[in-house]
Amino acid sequence: MENEKTVSIESELADVSNQQFTTKRATVPALEDILYTPHKVLDHGFIRVVDYMGDDNAVVQAARVSYGKGTKKVSQDRGLLRYLLRHRHTTPFEMCEIKFHIKLPIFIARQWIRHRTANVNEYSARYSILDKEFYLPSPEHLAAQSATNKQCRGDTVTPEEAQKVLEILKEDSERCYANYKYMLNQDENGEPQDETRAGVARELARMNLNLNYYTQWYWKIDLHNLMHFVALRADSHAQYEIRVYAEIMKEILKRWVPNTYEAFQDYREGGVNLSRIGLEIVQKLIRGEQVDQGNSGLSKREWKELMESLGLDI
Amino acid sequence: MENEKTVSIESELADVSNQQFTTKRATVPALEDILYTPHKVLDHGFIRVVDYMGDDNAVVQAARVSYGKGTKKVSQDRGLLRYLLRHRHTTPFEMCEIKFHIKLPIFIARQWIRHRTANVNEYSARYSILDKEFYLPSPEHLAAQSATNKQCRGDTVTPEEAQKVLEILKEDSERCYANYKYMLNQDENGEPQDETRAGVARELARMNLNLNYYTQWYWKIDLHNLMHFVALRADSHAQYEIRVYAEIMKEILKRWVPNTYEAFQDYREGGVNLSRIGLEIVQKLIRGEQVDQGNSGLSKREWKELMESLGLDI
Amino acid sequence: MENEKTVSIESELADVSNQQFTTKRATVPALEDILYTPHKVLDHGFIRVVDYMGDDNAVVQAARVSYGKGTKKVSQDRGLLRYLLRHRHTTPFEMCEIKFHIKLPIFIARQWIRHRTANVNEYSARYSILDKEFYLPSPEHLAAQSATNKQCRGDTVTPEEAQKVLEILKEDSERCYANYKYMLNQDENGEPQDETRAGVARELARMNLNLNYYTQWYWKIDLHNLMHFVALRADSHAQYEIRVYAEIMKEILKRWVPNTYEAFQDYREGGVNLSRIGLEIVQKLIRGEQVDQGNSGLSKREWKELMESLGLDI
Amino acid sequence: MENEKTVSIESELADVSNQQFTTKRATVPALEDILYTPHKVLDHGFIRVVDYMGDDNAVVQAARVSYGKGTKKVSQDRGLLRYLLRHRHTTPFEMCEIKFHIKLPIFIARQWIRHRTANVNEYSARYSILDKEFYLPSPEHLAAQSATNKQCRGDTVTPEEAQKVLEILKEDSERCYANYKYMLNQDENGEPQDETRAGVARELARMNLNLNYYTQWYWKIDLHNLMHFVALRADSHAQYEIRVYAEIMKEILKRWVPNTYEAFQDYREGGVNLSRIGLEIVQKLIRGEQVDQGNSGLSKREWKELMESLGLDI
Repeated sequence: MENEKTVSIESELADVSNQQFTTKRATVPALEDILYTPHKVLDHGFIRVVDYMGDDNAVVQAARVSYGKGTKKVSQDRGLLRYLLRHRHTTPFEMCEIKFHIKLPIFIARQWIRHRTANVNEYSARYSILDKEFYLPSPEHLAAQSATNKQCRGDTVTPEEAQKVLEILKEDSERCYANYKYMLNQDENGEPQDETRAGVARELARMNLNLNYYTQWYWKIDLHNLMHFVALRADSHAQYEIRVYAEIMKEILKRWVPNTYEAFQDYREGGVNLSRIGLEIVQKLIRGEQVDQGNSGLSKREWKELMESLGLDI
Repeated sequence: MENEKTVSIESELADVSNQQFTTKRATVPALEDILYTPHKVLDHGFIRVVDYMGDDNAVVQAARVSYGKGTKKVSQDRGLLRYLLRHRHTTPFEMCEIKFHIKLPIFIARQWIRHRTANVNEYSARYSILDKEFYLPSPEHLAAQSATNKQCRGDTVTPEEAQKVLEILKEDSERCYANYKYMLNQDENGEPQDETRAGVARELARMNLNLNYYTQWYWKIDLHNLMHFVALRADSHAQYEIRVYAEIMKEILKRWVPNTYEAFQDYREGGVNLSRIGLEIVQKLIRGEQVDQGNSGLSKREWKELMESLGLDI
Repeated sequence: MENEKTVSIESELADVSNQQFTTKRATVPALEDILYTPHKVLDHGFIRVVDYMGDDNAVVQAARVSYGKGTKKVSQDRGLLRYLLRHRHTTPFEMCEIKFHIKLPIFIARQWIRHRTANVNEYSARYSILDKEFYLPSPEHLAAQSATNKQCRGDTVTPEEAQKVLEILKEDSERCYANYKYMLNQDENGEPQDETRAGVARELARMNLNLNYYTQWYWKIDLHNLMHFVALRADSHAQYEIRVYAEIMKEILKRWVPNTYEAFQDYREGGVNLSRIGLEIVQKLIRGEQVDQGNSGLSKREWKELMESLGLDI
Repeated sequence: MENEKTVSIESELADVSNQQFTTKRATVPALEDILYTPHKVLDHGFIRVVDYMGDDNAVVQAARVSYGKGTKKVSQDRGLLRYLLRHRHTTPFEMCEIKFHIKLPIFIARQWIRHRTANVNEYSARYSILDKEFYLPSPEHLAAQSATNKQCRGDTVTPEEAQKVLEILKEDSERCYANYKYMLNQDENGEPQDETRAGVARELARMNLNLNYYTQWYWKIDLHNLMHFVALRADSHAQYEIRVYAEIMKEILKRWVPNTYEAFQDYREGGVNLSRIGLEIVQKLIRGEQVDQGNSGLSKREWKELMESLGLDI
């Protein structure tokens, strides 16, 4: 199912994954171990690191130039990284870069690309023929996502209903792809399949594909913006299909910059933002005063969000 | 076919287009005349200006602060704007902003969004139901684009073939949309259509739509980056379906900043970049020397591009 | 003391502040009232709004396109703005722009420019002659800033010492400016002061000026990034000389987008970020458990910061 | 003269320049040879590469993903790189990054920072004490720059005048630094020099320094933006003091990405932009027609610029 071009990327990468060079640059053995290795995501997707620059120490180094003597107070590197993240001193984290090769469904790519602070080179269906690879959710996720979806009035999607939906998705995807190929009238090598008729331009034929078709890209981002991406997209409110990519990125973060990752978990992932009123409520609760939604100054929705974020059941 | 939310945008904009305020801000009557007015593009798309800031004079003002006395040499505003564009002094043009409301096919939105220097708020099919509006090319453009498309070995698409392709696109779009609605199991008001079964989450159902479905967004950009967008996308190498939007933007540019637009035409649109070797060839040609591809130092492709850009037939 | 160029900006702005145009654009009367009016800052600085685009409603409109039906749950505009800020949905706030004309000391301009998400046109001492205007702190601020400054081992700066410092600053500024003018050998009109000798290029002579000399620029930024700037620079840890500018911006924010400003105060300014451990400590405190720095898992520094941010004295 | 912090950066870098790691990443031996090595610039400045990511091949790889089969037509890597630069397909060049450690005078740092598409961590005089290192131009450059400077009506700066100017600069720099240290009242270790009086905060004392004092920073940028920086700043119109840094960057580019550099020289450095009218004039000249400024449609200034860029003397 893969066309020639994709295959050539695969083989190119196979070559590089065996190469060994000598460098004076900061090098992270735990990340080298998985360099170029694809991590499977969803049914046909993957994510793999293809290059990186810098490590925990590069962040520390940049911070020490900026904050100079001020950084002495937090003399240990680990403490400094925590200090930087706590106080949102973000520029030292911009000194590290990482480059991924990612395969993902188009409707997820459309969400993803809204993070504008990355560099992207996407496979172009204007110039190339897309592979016949489309995303089908697993029945469990289909049911689970639809259940948590507030707009759904009905009951949970039953296994039979899920099956039916998957058949619809599969049939539509296959029919649209067959018609895409018919319109192109080209085989894998760009030769006409049917000599008696002309083909439609690739840039037009592609419009018949569904949003669950896979695309791929190189995506390069600095460490600060990667943490921002992960914080938003590995969050429980993110759509499942992008969350699974973000979760692999967390594992990659952990290998690449373990001390930064630890601080990230403490100050971003595990942390909570309190509003002015939220802070007042916390202060009252600590003093043992009675507070309920009615006298809190918060709307029901905000009250619920606050109690959830504090892990309280009041 | 329009759902409630879109309708409300329409009526909101209808209200504002009648409003009249008094302002001390730079105001451009020619642009006010078309403020909020949709310009039709393709079969269901549109583009309209919903806000703007600054004018030709704001660029001049910013340049005079930056270049100070240096700008005296080019004492007239028109001359200064030409000087700035000629010498790629881009920051003064960043002092003007314009905000559009645009409706466009998804496969074009995917090209468009690669311009990262704009602000975007897109209609989200994760939260809302997409309208049943999809793009079908006109038979002429289908044939024309496919003919210029280098990958096509066959002859031109005949009228009969074009008709067949359009039927395929229409059928697939309609079937996929019907299935999208079936999976959602919701009417326009979010009420279940069939009470006996659950619906699928919007964020999942949308994946069955084709890339020719229309989306819409607010898109805000500064004048410098708008000119860059227009130069790339109104170019003859751009895909027809994005070029028609860029061409309307040119008309808008002309109304908004007429002097900048004139300079833009002279230095960007009508201009040519010569390479080092291209310059040497031009110098030889001016001196009346013989040059052909063989002795030019250029590849056949580069030679052809150079002769075309010079409008020569050698 | 002002040279011709600056004067011409003043008179240009004087002209525009009396103009009255009719527009269909969103207009904010409270901001129009102070359009072009300089607000004095420090001894020679100022800040004034020279243009703007959008208002509270533009943010709401952009959010309703993006989040569609989802925004119905928060049906009122004020509630929607609060929701957006609380959940860090930042793109709708990028739909508004504001442009300032600002005069500020160079050492503050160097801090300021690190915010890269703005557009800037600065007065260039490469092409123009800088005015003889330099910043001298007030004796109180000189003492206050030096006292809170952790590196200072000594006692507070006494009035006599402050006086001496100010004299040094004044003398050095004046001598360096006199030498700057001597090297330039030019009067206000660019005519040689002393016909018997050549002058030094402006781009070189400027290097003799001190960092307390004033520069000026146009600075244009969107509402999201403006709030970020204000949150960082109106903070009590920011240097006094930039904080005074940020505080005026807060007043401007309040006039321009009152509902957004209210939400900004509740969720950014008055808010607190709790780390994972900070959250655990708060939970323990609410449950009435004993926690002190020793058993908290926090360093002394982090403990102190947490207690301060919670307004507790434990 | 160097304070403790700077020394520690030096020794840190000394350590790393001897390290040898094994990596699977793309590695460029010619760049490794000069990694961490400072190249002297001006009297106290330097520039050195401290990290990099990617090479010529990373650009090619990214382009092949984007343009897919389209890139077959330009089958060789060198040809593809030339094609990309010629057609301003810039995103593949964004896939490479380089990080520099740079020491430069503050008035040059102020020009430099206007390139917003880089990541910066600057030594902060708010937290640290600046070294006593200031820039003095050489007498030749002082004279040369002042002569080409259009504002100068007088004759060339004579050797005696240059000597006098340098003495002024030196004296003012030294006096201001001595007063800076007096106000700080701190030695290298932050200990009070005079126990009987308090010191002034670093964030305030720094304002007495001149713009020719040296600062330093880490500066990280992608290959596309680096070429843009070099094209602007190695240009003959750039100020000498920034041009010398840009020229070293050209040497670094040549080592790092030799094929890209070759294309850069042909299409950026050695190239010329013709306006619409400029193109018409060139066409007339090639046809042997008479054109002079009077009948050209160009202003005298534009005509002169065109003739210079074409290397013609008409």
